[in-house]
Amino acid sequence: MPTLDDLDTPALVLDRAKVAANAARLKTHLATLGVPLRLHVKTAKCAEVAALVLGGEKAPITVSTLKEAEQFFDAGYRDILYAVGFERHKLARAQALAKRGARLTLLVDSAEAAQGITGFPVLIEIDTDGHRAGVKPDDGKTLIAIAQALEKAGCTAAGVLTHAGGSYNSASIAEIEAVAEQERSGAVAAAQALRRAGFAAPVVSIGSTPTAHFARTLEGVTEVRAGVFVFFDLVMAGIDVCRTEDLALSVLATVIGHRADKGWILVDAGWMAMSRDRGTARQRVDQGYGVVCDLDGAPIQDLVVTEANQEHGIVARRGGGKPPELPVGTRLRVLPNHACATGAQHDRYHVVEGARDVLASWPRFGGW
Amino acid sequence: MPTLDDLDTPALVLDRAKVAANAARLKTHLATLGVPLRLHVKTAKCAEVAALVLGGEKAPITVSTLKEAEQFFDAGYRDILYAVGFERHKLARAQALAKRGARLTLLVDSAEAAQGITGFPVLIEIDTDGHRAGVKPDDGKTLIAIAQALEKAGCTAAGVLTHAGGSYNSASIAEIEAVAEQERSGAVAAAQALRRAGFAAPVVSIGSTPTAHFARTLEGVTEVRAGVFVFFDLVMAGIDVCRTEDLALSVLATVIGHRADKGWILVDAGWMAMSRDRGTARQRVDQGYGVVCDLDGAPIQDLVVTEANQEHGIVARRGGGKPPELPVGTRLRVLPNHACATGAQHDRYHVVEGARDVLASWPRFGGW
Repeated sequence: MPTLDDLDTPALVLDRAKVAANAARLKTHLATLGVPLRLHVKTAKCAEVAALVLGGEKAPITVSTLKEAEQFFDAGYRDILYAVGFERHKLARAQALAKRGARLTLLVDSAEAAQGITGFPVLIEIDTDGHRAGVKPDDGKTLIAIAQALEKAGCTAAGVLTHAGGSYNSASIAEIEAVAEQERSGAVAAAQALRRAGFAAPVVSIGSTPTAHFARTLEGVTEVRAGVFVFFDLVMAGIDVCRTEDLALSVLATVIGHRADKGWILVDAGWMAMSRDRGTARQRVDQGYGVVCDLDGAPIQDLVVTEANQEHGIVARRGGGKPPELPVGTRLRVLPNHACATGAQHDRYHVVEGARDVLASWPRFGGW
Repeated sequence: MPTLDDLDTPALVLDRAKVAANAARLKTHLATLGVPLRLHVKTAKCAEVAALVLGGEKAPITVSTLKEAEQFFDAGYRDILYAVGFERHKLARAQALAKRGARLTLLVDSAEAAQGITGFPVLIEIDTDGHRAGVKPDDGKTLIAIAQALEKAGCTAAGVLTHAGGSYNSASIAEIEAVAEQERSGAVAAAQALRRAGFAAPVVSIGSTPTAHFARTLEGVTEVRAGVFVFFDLVMAGIDVCRTEDLALSVLATVIGHRADKGWILVDAGWMAMSRDRGTARQRVDQGYGVVCDLDGAPIQDLVVTEANQEHGIVARRGGGKPPELPVGTRLRVLPNHACATGAQHDRYHVVEGARDVLASWPRFGGW
């Protein structure tokens, strides 16, 4: 059996025991609140990870691209929500998937976009925190106009969807709880406005990893979407949604040199392996391009990837100072800022379970 | 023939006429200075692009990964320089490629790294601007110790290599010219120190896209490496190495919605399509995640991608204000900050030549 010592570097390492624990945590919380999870597969883009999280059940999923919808349909999933504003250039491809048997739900946030679609259940996107797309929850007039446009175009106004992406910038758990309640109440109010106007609007779909974990009530909500929780990352740890030890993903790297004069250790994981995501730059602790751990996944005190070129990472102590002795050839693991972005730089997961043995290689796909 | 109106979005578009013009410009400059180009293939990772740049000649190339070396060997290239500090975990794979007939040159910057390698010509990395790895040009003692370690290990101390990556931060052409001369003179001095100590050290390899274009003399230099010039990007335009109209790469996107209250246009190209690279953030003009153009590639006044989620881009006027009317379904092209990073998010180039007809689809590879 290969171990982390044998792999070519850089390489993406996945601890499946941590994925299982992260999945159990969220599913337990949502079960307590009585609302099902609609897993977002955009983080992992891997059928094996989805199977692990969902216990093998072909449960409802969320996708961010039609390619994800097609790949997961081929893996046996049928109830698929495409949670990005739909535009008619993509209609033929969506129809082809529906014809094969997918129960595909689409999303719009304007009557203009609704006019191009026919034959699908469609959710209306609600903006509960001002960070991206969507109709304001109290803008009943626009909501009803969109629902009317949908039904006129031959679609079903199936309900509402919101994503509290602003929760990623929360400063405390109390703040996440408040954002979660704003997300829930806004979505429910929008659905009620549609129902008062005579639309069935059965679906109230909400979710983001922070709010999903800290919502205190989900009254009126019919499903929760979340994705990054399967791996967690430094951005999530930085706002206390998880602990650093919950991070399931890391990039295996090898020391290729030193600059003693600068306190630098050079490794063969640059931005191509880590991604250019600097999500912790605006947090309390800036983790550079990632936290450096030993081969067993334990962080090495204060060591981060401070700079990255395409295939070079510069490792140094946060705040400066002499780094520990790590000879050329030493293997390290780097925890990522953003699991979705780092994962996307790789085509497979090297699967471990708490130890160095590589138990499996799980493919992941990219593209559109 | 498909056109840019027919492609699924987001999609990577390459104007091959611009690649040809960019290649001609650099090759003409280097021919004037009498030094050959050793094309860096890490930007394009595509045999068709290399063939276009090199006029079909299987000329010497530079790679940043062993996978690039293997892929380009399979495409017929034989003289391959792996320009990242080598470490012995990669030896078996390098030896396998050499056994198949590759003339593979490796790189180290310490006697420690040299000890792990045998049977290859190896360059010593020189640091001429303090931005990454390498030995100081005037540190003859270390240079000679590395050369001795190489020859003891059964390698050839083939010369020196430097990369003036610091030139990316230049504030003027005059500054680039100065960095270029520092790069040249440092590399030549290091080679001379080795020669005085009895090593043949025939190779003096230098290069970065900015310095390659503005070097006034390359006396003593035997080859110039450059990669990003094949496409150019907003970072290069931001330091006047090229004009915006020279950019050969763009991401095709479709308008999916609007937020009139915020002055936003939403498109289906987020960071997954553009990369997280924000290289212009520290330049005079911050271009966000990219400059927004019409379908013919002409920039739309002041419009940039100001924010990006995984599959959403938020387009707004730089500095605020009402954006132009771009209905849902409008197709746009976004120029990238960093061609290497944006290219890496895609698996193919949709090739055009000044117009909307898609003339070819060229695959590009990723991974290690």
